[in-house]
Amino acid sequence: MIGLNTDAAVSFAGVINVEAAFTAERIAMAMPMSGWTRLPDDMERELPRLREAGQKIAESSDALVVIGAGGSSLGARALIEALPPRGVREVYFAGDNLSGSYMSRLVSRLANRDFSVIATSKSGTTTEPAAALRVLLKLLRERYGAQLSDRLYIVAGDGGSALRSFAETSGAGLFGIPESVGGRYSVLTAAGLLPAAARGLDIAEILRGAREESQHGTVTALRYAAVRQSLYSAGYRTEIFASFEPDARSLGEWWKQLFGESEGKHSGGIFPASVSFTGDLHSMGQYIQEGRRDIFETIVSFGESAVGAVIPDNSEFDDGFQFLDGRRFDAVNETARDAVKAAHLAGGVPVMELTVPGATEASLGALMFFFEYACAVSAIIGGVANPFDQPGVEAYKRIMLDTLKNFAH
Amino acid sequence: MIGLNTDAAVSFAGVINVEAAFTAERIAMAMPMSGWTRLPDDMERELPRLREAGQKIAESSDALVVIGAGGSSLGARALIEALPPRGVREVYFAGDNLSGSYMSRLVSRLANRDFSVIATSKSGTTTEPAAALRVLLKLLRERYGAQLSDRLYIVAGDGGSALRSFAETSGAGLFGIPESVGGRYSVLTAAGLLPAAARGLDIAEILRGAREESQHGTVTALRYAAVRQSLYSAGYRTEIFASFEPDARSLGEWWKQLFGESEGKHSGGIFPASVSFTGDLHSMGQYIQEGRRDIFETIVSFGESAVGAVIPDNSEFDDGFQFLDGRRFDAVNETARDAVKAAHLAGGVPVMELTVPGATEASLGALMFFFEYACAVSAIIGGVANPFDQPGVEAYKRIMLDTLKNFAH
Repeated sequence: MIGLNTDAAVSFAGVINVEAAFTAERIAMAMPMSGWTRLPDDMERELPRLREAGQKIAESSDALVVIGAGGSSLGARALIEALPPRGVREVYFAGDNLSGSYMSRLVSRLANRDFSVIATSKSGTTTEPAAALRVLLKLLRERYGAQLSDRLYIVAGDGGSALRSFAETSGAGLFGIPESVGGRYSVLTAAGLLPAAARGLDIAEILRGAREESQHGTVTALRYAAVRQSLYSAGYRTEIFASFEPDARSLGEWWKQLFGESEGKHSGGIFPASVSFTGDLHSMGQYIQEGRRDIFETIVSFGESAVGAVIPDNSEFDDGFQFLDGRRFDAVNETARDAVKAAHLAGGVPVMELTVPGATEASLGALMFFFEYACAVSAIIGGVANPFDQPGVEAYKRIMLDTLKNFAH
Repeated sequence: MIGLNTDAAVSFAGVINVEAAFTAERIAMAMPMSGWTRLPDDMERELPRLREAGQKIAESSDALVVIGAGGSSLGARALIEALPPRGVREVYFAGDNLSGSYMSRLVSRLANRDFSVIATSKSGTTTEPAAALRVLLKLLRERYGAQLSDRLYIVAGDGGSALRSFAETSGAGLFGIPESVGGRYSVLTAAGLLPAAARGLDIAEILRGAREESQHGTVTALRYAAVRQSLYSAGYRTEIFASFEPDARSLGEWWKQLFGESEGKHSGGIFPASVSFTGDLHSMGQYIQEGRRDIFETIVSFGESAVGAVIPDNSEFDDGFQFLDGRRFDAVNETARDAVKAAHLAGGVPVMELTVPGATEASLGALMFFFEYACAVSAIIGGVANPFDQPGVEAYKRIMLDTLKNFAH
């Protein structure tokens, strides 16, 4: 269960009454895309297939290439980076950029490694993964011949696409994404769970954590949504997601897509930013402390890590920091977190703190469901017509595809 | 030389007259910290020592650990990640977080690798690098005995500190940072150049690019500063640094510190954010296109990469993207960039574009000097009393150190 402390934030803006926001028509608008609320239960029956495929990848491969853009890779990446590495040793991400040097380097990295590929695209209409898959497909053929079934896995929308048809005819492994689940809400589908399983993560635990949160955590999530919308109404325009674990950096990227794409509409919405403390205190810290007073901060605190290193005694090292000798890093990190909360509050920054039991599969599943629920509710409170679409993303896609299709070789 | 196109931005706000900003007292206030303007020349005489030390590290080590927080590592990291890897094969960063699991993982990584350490702290009063150095120092002693001279390098402020004294007495290699150069302006000192040299980068070229920019690029930098301040005056509050090269992600982090710490003062300043396209178009793209209309975008465009991969023909792969077959990734990437500019402009986002000849040492040196100059000028135009201090960073440091010192073991 995710804990939430909003005391240091409501003092700045109070909490708005949210009931008015939930009109029948708004809820009706959101219903068709509410499949994500059922994933913790619905995905249970997929677990055996996902585990089997993940195990095959882990056993046959030194490296896994996850192809996907936005929601098709951010959730998987957040899980893989936030949890202790097991299963497949190396995970590379592709299909989220169009850099030639990036792809060249990836290809040379794979030269002396056995690898498998998971390519995810719900719509099958995104250029970046299509381009990356072309390279990896050729590489797979050259290395492993015609037999793709144990090396290539496609995660595609159940609604059908040319990519899905290719999976069906090519013999690649195929997993679906329900049409009622949007890309940024798809971490609990195969999009997030198949790469997680290949990494050796306990995906049943991820679902269990999400299920418990869906049963007992929605009131807390509603409170988070209400407070952040209250702050927005009071003139706080930018929310900064802060964690004190470097491994949660990609979780912040996932969070930015979730909230930015859901709320950044109609010339409005809270601007989502993320920082990784304590490092970014030495870059963004000055601005947060003394810059424009229209920012608020949401700190995600994980329980102490089980493998916490200790700062050794260095009696000979007289640099004025001897008081650190013998301390656990995580204890010092907690002191830093309390100091940051106090300093930023004193500086006029509303601070909310989410407490997560620890960096475990169940906790991550719970945290991600918590944010998904809070985001949908927050967008509705904020007056967004449809929290689950992203019409603005289509703008550049259209222009780009038109150019590419008319582009002479 | 860095190119700049502001046409698509001035149409939103015009260009303010900046002369009024440069009063004698403001310039006098900035002068004591203007050492960074002389680094391209002053560092020439340091090149032989830096090269020699870098070569020793590259020859003796599989891995380099760069210890430093904020300006003590962001510049080095930006250079190392943006330029083709040579020299020492693996570079790890520490001293920019207090995570126990992060440090445990780093220590186990180093178990079967020969390694060297560069620890950078201008003030010598920052907790994170002090804690990290304690662990690495112990590891160095255990592995290589009392002799530190060829394995440990300290980069410390010329003004003196306990860390500097330790370097002098311990036999570690010692490099200085002039007192007249602030941490976020120190990339062209040993703080950035020593790790770069160990990575096998041509640090003379980095300085040459910076020198040329300092001689011929300041008018362009002044224009960038004037336009962004004009936009700020017109109500644009957030600047988004955008690159289409994933390898420039850390350059964006360096940029955020440079501008955020210089301008985020007196309850004002442009909020600095960064994105890595095309990937982040699938996360932040919706907000940029249709969210609050108080953001503007600065796109950094590099010339095509020399090792650009080609999208292979996959006649059998019928996914509707066959028009990509045979295209160069970088050409498609350029098409995406043009599409993004057009779409964001149409969406009401002022866009500036910086063109960098290519991802080379000289170009990176030029680009970083360009931003340093633009930042100092912009902060002065914006009315910041001192562009080179960061009083707000001290707030949490004070609280944290008080707690730590009174903390019972």
